[in-house]
Amino acid sequence: MTSILILNGPNLNLLGTRQPEVYGATSLSDIEQNCANWSAKSGCPVTFAQSNHEGALIDHIHAARNVRDGIILNAGAYTHTSIALMDAISSVGIPTIELHLSNVHAREDYRHVSYIAKVAIGIICGFGPQGYIMALEAIKSHVED
Amino acid sequence: MTSILILNGPNLNLLGTRQPEVYGATSLSDIEQNCANWSAKSGCPVTFAQSNHEGALIDHIHAARNVRDGIILNAGAYTHTSIALMDAISSVGIPTIELHLSNVHAREDYRHVSYIAKVAIGIICGFGPQGYIMALEAIKSHVED
Amino acid sequence: MTSILILNGPNLNLLGTRQPEVYGATSLSDIEQNCANWSAKSGCPVTFAQSNHEGALIDHIHAARNVRDGIILNAGAYTHTSIALMDAISSVGIPTIELHLSNVHAREDYRHVSYIAKVAIGIICGFGPQGYIMALEAIKSHVED
Amino acid sequence: MTSILILNGPNLNLLGTRQPEVYGATSLSDIEQNCANWSAKSGCPVTFAQSNHEGALIDHIHAARNVRDGIILNAGAYTHTSIALMDAISSVGIPTIELHLSNVHAREDYRHVSYIAKVAIGIICGFGPQGYIMALEAIKSHVED
Amino acid sequence: MTSILILNGPNLNLLGTRQPEVYGATSLSDIEQNCANWSAKSGCPVTFAQSNHEGALIDHIHAARNVRDGIILNAGAYTHTSIALMDAISSVGIPTIELHLSNVHAREDYRHVSYIAKVAIGIICGFGPQGYIMALEAIKSHVED
Amino acid sequence: MTSILILNGPNLNLLGTRQPEVYGATSLSDIEQNCANWSAKSGCPVTFAQSNHEGALIDHIHAARNVRDGIILNAGAYTHTSIALMDAISSVGIPTIELHLSNVHAREDYRHVSYIAKVAIGIICGFGPQGYIMALEAIKSHVED
Amino acid sequence: MTSILILNGPNLNLLGTRQPEVYGATSLSDIEQNCANWSAKSGCPVTFAQSNHEGALIDHIHAARNVRDGIILNAGAYTHTSIALMDAISSVGIPTIELHLSNVHAREDYRHVSYIAKVAIGIICGFGPQGYIMALEAIKSHVED
Amino acid sequence: MTSILILNGPNLNLLGTRQPEVYGATSLSDIEQNCANWSAKSGCPVTFAQSNHEGALIDHIHAARNVRDGIILNAGAYTHTSIALMDAISSVGIPTIELHLSNVHAREDYRHVSYIAKVAIGIICGFGPQGYIMALEAIKSHVED
Amino acid sequence: MTSILILNGPNLNLLGTRQPEVYGATSLSDIEQNCANWSAKSGCPVTFAQSNHEGALIDHIHAARNVRDGIILNAGAYTHTSIALMDAISSVGIPTIELHLSNVHAREDYRHVSYIAKVAIGIICGFGPQGYIMALEAIKSHVED
Amino acid sequence: MTSILILNGPNLNLLGTRQPEVYGATSLSDIEQNCANWSAKSGCPVTFAQSNHEGALIDHIHAARNVRDGIILNAGAYTHTSIALMDAISSVGIPTIELHLSNVHAREDYRHVSYIAKVAIGIICGFGPQGYIMALEAIKSHVED
Amino acid sequence: MTSILILNGPNLNLLGTRQPEVYGATSLSDIEQNCANWSAKSGCPVTFAQSNHEGALIDHIHAARNVRDGIILNAGAYTHTSIALMDAISSVGIPTIELHLSNVHAREDYRHVSYIAKVAIGIICGFGPQGYIMALEAIKSHVED
Amino acid sequence: MTSILILNGPNLNLLGTRQPEVYGATSLSDIEQNCANWSAKSGCPVTFAQSNHEGALIDHIHAARNVRDGIILNAGAYTHTSIALMDAISSVGIPTIELHLSNVHAREDYRHVSYIAKVAIGIICGFGPQGYIMALEAIKSHVED
Repeated sequence: MTSILILNGPNLNLLGTRQPEVYGATSLSDIEQNCANWSAKSGCPVTFAQSNHEGALIDHIHAARNVRDGIILNAGAYTHTSIALMDAISSVGIPTIELHLSNVHAREDYRHVSYIAKVAIGIICGFGPQGYIMALEAIKSHVED
Repeated sequence: MTSILILNGPNLNLLGTRQPEVYGATSLSDIEQNCANWSAKSGCPVTFAQSNHEGALIDHIHAARNVRDGIILNAGAYTHTSIALMDAISSVGIPTIELHLSNVHAREDYRHVSYIAKVAIGIICGFGPQGYIMALEAIKSHVED
Repeated sequence: MTSILILNGPNLNLLGTRQPEVYGATSLSDIEQNCANWSAKSGCPVTFAQSNHEGALIDHIHAARNVRDGIILNAGAYTHTSIALMDAISSVGIPTIELHLSNVHAREDYRHVSYIAKVAIGIICGFGPQGYIMALEAIKSHVED
Repeated sequence: MTSILILNGPNLNLLGTRQPEVYGATSLSDIEQNCANWSAKSGCPVTFAQSNHEGALIDHIHAARNVRDGIILNAGAYTHTSIALMDAISSVGIPTIELHLSNVHAREDYRHVSYIAKVAIGIICGFGPQGYIMALEAIKSHVED
Repeated sequence: MTSILILNGPNLNLLGTRQPEVYGATSLSDIEQNCANWSAKSGCPVTFAQSNHEGALIDHIHAARNVRDGIILNAGAYTHTSIALMDAISSVGIPTIELHLSNVHAREDYRHVSYIAKVAIGIICGFGPQGYIMALEAIKSHVED
Repeated sequence: MTSILILNGPNLNLLGTRQPEVYGATSLSDIEQNCANWSAKSGCPVTFAQSNHEGALIDHIHAARNVRDGIILNAGAYTHTSIALMDAISSVGIPTIELHLSNVHAREDYRHVSYIAKVAIGIICGFGPQGYIMALEAIKSHVED
Repeated sequence: MTSILILNGPNLNLLGTRQPEVYGATSLSDIEQNCANWSAKSGCPVTFAQSNHEGALIDHIHAARNVRDGIILNAGAYTHTSIALMDAISSVGIPTIELHLSNVHAREDYRHVSYIAKVAIGIICGFGPQGYIMALEAIKSHVED
Repeated sequence: MTSILILNGPNLNLLGTRQPEVYGATSLSDIEQNCANWSAKSGCPVTFAQSNHEGALIDHIHAARNVRDGIILNAGAYTHTSIALMDAISSVGIPTIELHLSNVHAREDYRHVSYIAKVAIGIICGFGPQGYIMALEAIKSHVED
Repeated sequence: MTSILILNGPNLNLLGTRQPEVYGATSLSDIEQNCANWSAKSGCPVTFAQSNHEGALIDHIHAARNVRDGIILNAGAYTHTSIALMDAISSVGIPTIELHLSNVHAREDYRHVSYIAKVAIGIICGFGPQGYIMALEAIKSHVED
Repeated sequence: MTSILILNGPNLNLLGTRQPEVYGATSLSDIEQNCANWSAKSGCPVTFAQSNHEGALIDHIHAARNVRDGIILNAGAYTHTSIALMDAISSVGIPTIELHLSNVHAREDYRHVSYIAKVAIGIICGFGPQGYIMALEAIKSHVED
Repeated sequence: MTSILILNGPNLNLLGTRQPEVYGATSLSDIEQNCANWSAKSGCPVTFAQSNHEGALIDHIHAARNVRDGIILNAGAYTHTSIALMDAISSVGIPTIELHLSNVHAREDYRHVSYIAKVAIGIICGFGPQGYIMALEAIKSHVED
Repeated sequence: MTSILILNGPNLNLLGTRQPEVYGATSLSDIEQNCANWSAKSGCPVTFAQSNHEGALIDHIHAARNVRDGIILNAGAYTHTSIALMDAISSVGIPTIELHLSNVHAREDYRHVSYIAKVAIGIICGFGPQGYIMALEAIKSHVED
């Protein structure tokens, strides 16, 4: 059974209230519930976490070492600025999917840069909350192949 | 029922034989078969095409106007250079998913630019042939929502 | 009598249906008819063509060699990316006017680059379908001076 | 009746004497006469002015507010450096055509930048003195549509 | 009554001791006292906080949602690097003034970039501790207008 | 008593009529009146001037030498292009505040460059007409400290 | 015996008539004849093709897979813009020489970029029609070593 | 006696387990032990700390003010992105050596930028764990000179 | 006899009072006197002018057409920003020397760009007031050769 | 008879021992011998030289003036940095071929710049030692045409 | 026993007399003496050389091939411009430490580029003459490990 | 009496023969003779040297230390690439004039960069051989002031 960490970065705790025209009306706990449902159905344990602190996200990734089989990382704005997060993923050697709710490549230029992408196995962006389920399926399939 | 066009760009006809360490051993007709199976199961008609010609890809997109509900576009190298393909997608106004077999953002810098991304609803990259099924599910769900 | 080729590039076949807020509601065949009317009035033979294929546009330009006195080229998105089209114009040595329906210089940055402009005698942009008649008058006057 | 201001920027007073291989032998007063003839024929009042002073050009544009229906602006070298001129056009809200005698896009790189283009309705360049008549027809047609 | 959060970023706790030739001799608690005096006089509640942690600053901004009417943000060096802070301000939708003690635009080039400025209503910089009172007056007047 | 010159650059004479969604409905003479009221109250003589001519603004700054104690400069679009204005300020050695009605750092990229900022003591932008009073208070306090 | 494909890109069909001061007076069929003579002498089969269509060039390269031992590619202007052609060469894994008649590195800056060079075994440019024979000798020697 | 703070940034806690081909097999506590041994021998008190949190590293630096005589800072990935850390070092005015285990200048381009270097007295990189002892000797010698 | 125009740009009227550590203590009328003395000795008529207005400098250059044999242009800050001044020099076709009192190439980066240099016969900078006499000798010798 | 200078730049003396996976196992004296054999067969005198000193290479080129009919220059790393070598070739006016053993355009970016190419008649790169013979044939043919 | 070459580049012969505020008062022969003392103590033979000639430095490195076990290279200004020196180090395959007396990364931008760093095992900069002893210890330890 | 070193860089030995349309027909020994004549007249000893070797030019500058009062440096192409030459001038602390025969700022872009300018007292360019006499007068006047 594939054990998966879903990690959410800065401002994602406000999901559903923040710029709904960009991010939609679903809240992060709605998404957490969807992921829990998927976990129940698939039998794969899923842990769901969020932090606005870059260091806390790194700590989460470290803690996943030898414990989780895959990571789904929606690093929010840290995607574009954090070499340290990228290094954390390399350090633990866990297959990681980069996830974004919105299509960041259709937004401002400074959101086109991704350090996470350099070490991720794949990227899913623009599919809103559904992207989490897509990522869960993909990481499961990647690990179990 | 959502009718979907899957469009593949230059060099994808060689899939399975070309740089398997990057693109895997599955051939394009294997993928076409997977998509046909999905079509049968989901009841959504799927058309599958490939061309090495930028103009032919544009013609395909135009032909989809008022006929298809969604497009899955793996534009290959034209992703990074073709403003004309991007304009074709805007012209027909059909929801389009940008797809790549490999994680192009972890490869050469000139593969980090995407004109398609500016008009796509979402991006899926790095999941190999499975990405096609992910994209089919996503476009179906996007259209039927 | 000045013989003129009017050549239209990718996506212009969708004119009238594509983003009317940018390109207006006139179709390409409306424009072709206007040009035919002008041809009848002026006595200058005018040929009107469109293709989504960069190579086909080059073939058209080559075919005009020693046959046409002037070219009006609305190269669409190929304007910004095609060195080959620019070279085709240099190769045949026919006076060419660069034409755009919209004011491309007031749009996205990547539409500010023009390879065609480097070899064109002049540029007309932003005047919609009327631009074709302006260009016909201008090329006639340029050739007959 | 469409009332039009034709405004000419720095060094255009030397037209006919300055680098005739680039700008031709026609003088600015020849052009003014052509425009006066067009005015007589069309019944549209046309005012013609020139200044080497960026500030004076701005003053002219301000004075046109609520008085002129269209502006034809050959801003010469200020085209490439003056944000203030661009702002002046936005401030008065009068439809403006950017005009150049030579094809500036085929010359030095620093002549490819245009602040005026960002707020102009269209651009005509490379047609020499004839460009003024083309612009008069175009602005008249734009305003009277 | 306008309720205001004043938020201070990294290294501002050392104010008065750090490079006094750049930042002056006033300490952050002196400034806090000035702001408290202003609060007493104006009747507007003011909360004053400082943290060296980017995540903690984001948490503060989130906590102000639906509670504060305005934010004065002296983000220190995070001004130039933190897209996440900028997103936090957008997320809570509270009018925010960007504040700097020194004139950052007269210092090193990397201090000329501001992500905060993209979402702030206004900027005050270079006026030392007095800038806080200027900002309080300005945010009050902005909110109460 | 602090004697202050308030200097306004190109297009500011149209204030109130120009793009009110960006610059507001207050006219420049309204602002002048506010500043005169402030002058009466504070006892500080204030002179108020506007010109669309870069050279005239420089002349004004030169004339202030040994006569004024402070300058408030809203250089409009010249802020972003005029090294000569910046040199004028250095030349006369009078403390100068850079002022903008709108938050120029939240607008187009070419409005993020400021030569004035390199020699100003501080910057106030985004507060509309109120910014003038903020600047008057700040320059008075700067000079009288 | 080394079997060789010589592939010529856009505008090369006009060789001998196009800008003879840059490209010389020899026609492409003259060159084809020279290559045929070399083929007869060397015993190595040589196929010679030209197209103005990027997609057609890719098709030619694909068709050479498992059939040809070497490719000589004069991709003309596509050299500088086509990532798809570069990928085609990688896809078929046939040793390829990049060829240009003129010294492209002594011409305009946009002709200094070559995607083909990234996957070619070597480059020959500036030697006119003789370059084809040099390339034939070189590819033969490379393959037979 | 020189009192020294050794501060380690993000991901260094995983040393010995993380990419040993780049960083070696020694763990951070091995290094801490080496430094403790050096401390015992030299008589210089040494404190050793690590955090994945940028803000915590800044707090550590602040706490060293008036307490430590020198800092050895291996800021990891924050080296390349943190202006706030650089400002923290300036704020406390303690001589600081920038340290890296690997030769960051021989790695990816984004690892060639260092904000720390702008305020450090010197840099040691590429010598693995031995670099810590080199830095201890150097800071001791710098302080005691 | 060579008739020479010496033209001085913005802020040079303040010479002697402005930043004497950069520009020296000599005033512009001292320099004018030196040039008049040189004129008397050499028998070459010399006219000396200054303006802070870019347009006025252009007018001066135009007025020199067919009247002066050489121009010495110290364009001050307009050197770095004025394409219009450069065009004015080309327009009148008078040999022109670019002059600066200070070594502008040893100052800020934005003072390293010179449009004037593109059309000047030579450059003299860094020699203070003596530079004017050097330039007078040089232009005389250039014209009379 | 065409007299030819073959000039080899820095580090080429180590050929055969240096990074054989990039440069092959042939030594420079092997190449010299091949060239001597070609010279004997063709009757064209060939001189072969190598130096690690940029100045010495320039001296060699100068010495070839009026003595040699052609130069083959493998300038090694000086290709990418030496404007002086480029000027030396222009100065002597001898037709020069730029030669590289490896395909420098497929290596690091800083090896894509070539000052030599701007003045060379042609370029041969990527063919290893055989490139020297190719260049000898080409220079002979160029000179004797 | 580790045999070491210490190689010093341009202008280092003036050490002690040149800008002592940057480089200190120690002369190069003082440093040579320190290194000789270290050699005596450690038993490792050390050769010490200096040249202002890039070519001579390359010759020195070549001569060290198969003779020295390590190189300490203070390449001075050639660090930032010499690809040839970098290639020389790769060519001989001797472990090399890049050394600078001053912290070059805290100086001008053009001193932040280092070609040497790309092939060095490590870098020591900012420690003045002591850096040589640090480098000797480090190279010894690197070689003998 | 001012003792002056005139130092000439690469390719200047070919003066008079090299591209006379750019550099004129005067040879370097003609110039040397002119300088000797000036020396005789002025009583100032002048030494004249040329080398194609960057290192030799540095050696010359070092040798001038405490011996010469001024240097006139025509560094030719090394002007644009040699940080080492710039450092040599700083090292010896002798006032230096940068000299060029042609107006390098009107030539190719890569000739607009000058490292020498950063440490020179002034620049003279574009006056051909006369520039040497101008420089001699200027350095004499600078030293004797």
